[in-house]
Parts: sequence; C-alpha cells; structure tokens
Amino acid sequence: MNRPELQFYKESIEEALDAYLPSSSCVPEKIHEAMRYSVCGGGKRIRGVLALIACEVAGGRWQDALPAACALEMIHAYSLIHDDLPCMDDDDLRRGKPTNHRVYGEAIALLAGDALLTHGIATMVNNIPAGLEGAYHRALQELVEAIGTQGMIGGQVLDLAAEGKQLTLEELNLIYRWKTGALIRAALRMGGLIGGGEQWVLEALTQYGEALGLAFQITDDLLDLEADPEILGKMVGSDLKKQKATYPGIVGNDEAHRLAMAEIMRACTALAPLGESGKVLIELAEAVLKRNH
Amino acid sequence: MNRPELQFYKESIEEALDAYLPSSSCVPEKIHEAMRYSVCGGGKRIRGVLALIACEVAGGRWQDALPAACALEMIHAYSLIHDDLPCMDDDDLRRGKPTNHRVYGEAIALLAGDALLTHGIATMVNNIPAGLEGAYHRALQELVEAIGTQGMIGGQVLDLAAEGKQLTLEELNLIYRWKTGALIRAALRMGGLIGGGEQWVLEALTQYGEALGLAFQITDDLLDLEADPEILGKMVGSDLKKQKATYPGIVGNDEAHRLAMAEIMRACTALAPLGESGKVLIELAEAVLKRNH
Repeated sequence: MNRPELQFYKESIEEALDAYLPSSSCVPEKIHEAMRYSVCGGGKRIRGVLALIACEVAGGRWQDALPAACALEMIHAYSLIHDDLPCMDDDDLRRGKPTNHRVYGEAIALLAGDALLTHGIATMVNNIPAGLEGAYHRALQELVEAIGTQGMIGGQVLDLAAEGKQLTLEELNLIYRWKTGALIRAALRMGGLIGGGEQWVLEALTQYGEALGLAFQITDDLLDLEADPEILGKMVGSDLKKQKATYPGIVGNDEAHRLAMAEIMRACTALAPLGESGKVLIELAEAVLKRNH
Repeated sequence: MNRPELQFYKESIEEALDAYLPSSSCVPEKIHEAMRYSVCGGGKRIRGVLALIACEVAGGRWQDALPAACALEMIHAYSLIHDDLPCMDDDDLRRGKPTNHRVYGEAIALLAGDALLTHGIATMVNNIPAGLEGAYHRALQELVEAIGTQGMIGGQVLDLAAEGKQLTLEELNLIYRWKTGALIRAALRMGGLIGGGEQWVLEALTQYGEALGLAFQITDDLLDLEADPEILGKMVGSDLKKQKATYPGIVGNDEAHRLAMAEIMRACTALAPLGESGKVLIELAEAVLKRNH
C-alpha cells in the first residue's frame, strides 16, 4: 500500500473522522475521548479506503463516499472495542496500545462501542451529498445487513461458540465470511453504490471483496503465528492460547499460505472486467498478502 | 392505559416485532433467542405506542409508523440489556425475569444488545412505506441523535459518573433528559414526522414528550422506593443501594410527587393546540402518573 493515492485516501479519511467525531472537549468528555482513542489511534483504514476506491471505480467522486468510509471505520472500531472486552476475547493490547477498557474501564468501553456504532450510522444519515439520497439509502441497507446477526455479529457469535472446538474448514469459512468478510464486502458495495456503478461493476466489486476478505483473514491467522509482535502491535500466538480454530491450524501453514494466495488471485480475476480502473484494487490485494501487521 | 385503542396499538407493535425480529430457529439461533427474550418478554411499549399515536395525531396512518415503533422498542431493549450488564448496573432482574446476561451469559447479552441496536436501524431502513422515504430519513436522524452521546448514551455516561455523588436537581435533570427523555421525545417526533405533521404539531408533540419523559423518570424514582416488587418486576430500593441520585432523594417524596404531577400538567397543556386529537395522549400521561410498574 505505498501508492501515493492510497496514502492520500487514508489521510483524507483520518481528517474526515476527526471532523465527524464529537470533540473530546464536548460534554460528556470521557466518552468522546474513549471513542477517539479507538478510532483515531492508527489502523490501516482498509475498509474506508476500499469504499473510496470502489466509488471511483464505479464512476463516482471519492469525496462523495467519505461519510460512508468514516461510518465503516467507526463501526470497525466499535467491533474491536466490544471484541476486546473481558467477557469476549479479554485482550489487553490493540494496535500496540492498551485496549479501550484497559484505559477507560469496562463501562465506558462498552458505551464507547455503542456510541461508535450509533455515530457511524448518524454520520451516514447526516452527511449525504446532494442528489445521492437514494444511493446512500441503499448503502445503509448494505451496511446494516453486513454488521447484523448474519454478518459481523453473527460471526462473533459463531466464533465464541467454536472456542476449544475442532472445526471443519467449511465451518471456519462461515465464521470468517461473517465476522470480517461481510464488512469488507459491504465497503466495496457501498462505495460502488454511491459511485453509481452498474450491476456488473457491483458484481465485480462484490466478488473481489469476498475473496479479499477471506485472504485478509487467512493472513491474520498466519500473522498471529509468524509475525513480530512489535510490528503487529498485539500479542502473537493468542489464537493458539485461546484454542481458536484457524486456517493454519486446520490445513497447516504452507497450505494456508497457498490458499491465501489463491484467494488473492480470485480477487484479482474478478476485477478483469474493470480494466485499468481496477488496477489500484489489485495492488491493494497484493499488499494484503505481503502485510506484516 | 386501559383505552381499547392503546391495547390495540400495543398488540399491533408486538405482532410487528415478532415479524421483524429474526426467527429463533434461524442460525445463529442463540443470538436470535437472546434478542427475542428481551424484546418479546413484556414491557409497556410506551415508546412504540407514542410513535403510533403521534403519527395519527399528525394526520398520518398509524400503520406507517410501525417500523419506527418497532425500532424504538428494539433500541429500548438494547439499552436495558447493556445497562443491566455486570460492568454497568449489574442487575439480576428485569420485568420480573432474570436479566439477559443471567440467562445467556455476558458475551451473548453484549452481542444481543449490539444486534438489537443494529436490527432496530435495519427495521427502519428496510420497511419504509411507499412515498415516505423523506419522512423516514428525517425520523432516522431524530432517532440516532436521541440515542447518541448527547442523548441516551450520554445519559448513561453521566449516570455512571454520578454514582455516589451529591447532585443538584439541575444535574439530575440533564441525566434524565438524556437517559430516558431523549428517546421518548424522539418517539413522538418520529411519529409526527412520519405522519406528515406541520411544524406547530411537531412543536406540541415535542413539548409534550419532554414533560412526559421527565414525569416518567420521576415516577420511576418513586416506584423504586414505594412499589410492590412483585408488581414492579424488579428489586425495589436499588437506587438507594447504589447511592444513585433521585428526585425523592434530592427534594423528598412529597415534592417529587408534586413535581411529577406538574410535569404531567405541562405535558397536557402542550397538547391544547391539538384539540380533540390529543386526548389519548393526555390519558396516557395521566396513566404514567398512576402506574404501579
């Protein structure tokens, strides 16, 4: 992800997040501080960047997708805060910093997650560019479906139920498709809808998103085994410790690497109909495979 | 609340909730079961009923406000589930039954709350009656504002921060206005917007909602001291035990009763411009004052 436009998109999202989030000098200060701690504290902004690129690929202006990109990032941050809570994964570190509840306490962390989900929706509802009311409505439908009980939340439920159990690759795939895949797929579809993309463009973006999401999650599993914790910003080996099913655990490291690569190729193939305009998405997919955090 | 139309509205909301909520035989079953446990397990449906009545008062068809009424009830249920969690109020009983986390565990309760917030929004976004797209958009704006950090969540934050502290009546009023008042106010405004109400109608509904919300919370404080726990469905004296600031705690029981009555009168006065059509709202306000649970 070293292309200058990717860095530019990332910075534009970070500026917009700063503008859309309530100021931490605003009452009640503590919750706004806690929200900003998790949203503004780094992160790759992959979901937001995908939405902006998809909007351009579909023929729109990337700026028009900024409220949606920020909603995706806020909602991603909410899911991490709740996932890290003691009653869930009970994690102490995230992106190299103490998790939200380690800094603000469980009650505020719970509410900061709730508030980021709420504010993500509010950001989409309150900042619709003129003339895009219908597209934003459809994009919001995509979003709420992707983060519901047959999407992100459903994935977390299955993940909890699977702890300590022997899963088949098929069962693990469903967890991944819901837990992380759905929001990445939605990011692309939301951007595509806001950009006014035709059906075949949306279809290409969807296929790409599904393959990228899975590749992303397999490399996550591999990073948990192989990464440098300093660079990863969280503990390694935590999946093993929690007896979580993973791709390398089921098929071995080498096969997991091969399957991640196969998904990346599937992602890139899906973009073929888009020609030149899909090129930046191909580079992004390749970067996912090579990432070290 | 014995008027037959109020009972009819309540039953219509309960039927619609059953239709809008995912079936508990749908994967992942446990989360859908947990959502239904808290939404379908009784409750007065005050927020939903207020939205339906406001829609009619504003000149619309009550059926058109059903998706919004259900969203309000799902979101109210989410707030109760998260509020009852061990890291928040740590309550064991709600509406005479064990709280959600007591039945399903903390992790599922957390996610069921998240899912009800998400599904409440989805219900509004996916069930807009034809021709009411703009009104539903404005109603959704009202909703997300009312449940954000300067609404329901903000009230919970201030409530947490206030535990064990001596509050002024003014400070307590802000907590109440945000914690419970905002959603009741929003219920009326959402119904009014969906019903196509003119500005002066919305204004009357808003004034009514603000006064009703405060009266509702003061009687809640009084019920916590004076009610029969069998009828209330939860422990009494819990505010005292948690050293929560309350109206009776600050001004005494008699003055709290008087202030609740004054708010009910203010609520009813606000409805004067609506004439006959506001009558059912007046009866509802009087019922709030006389309720025993």
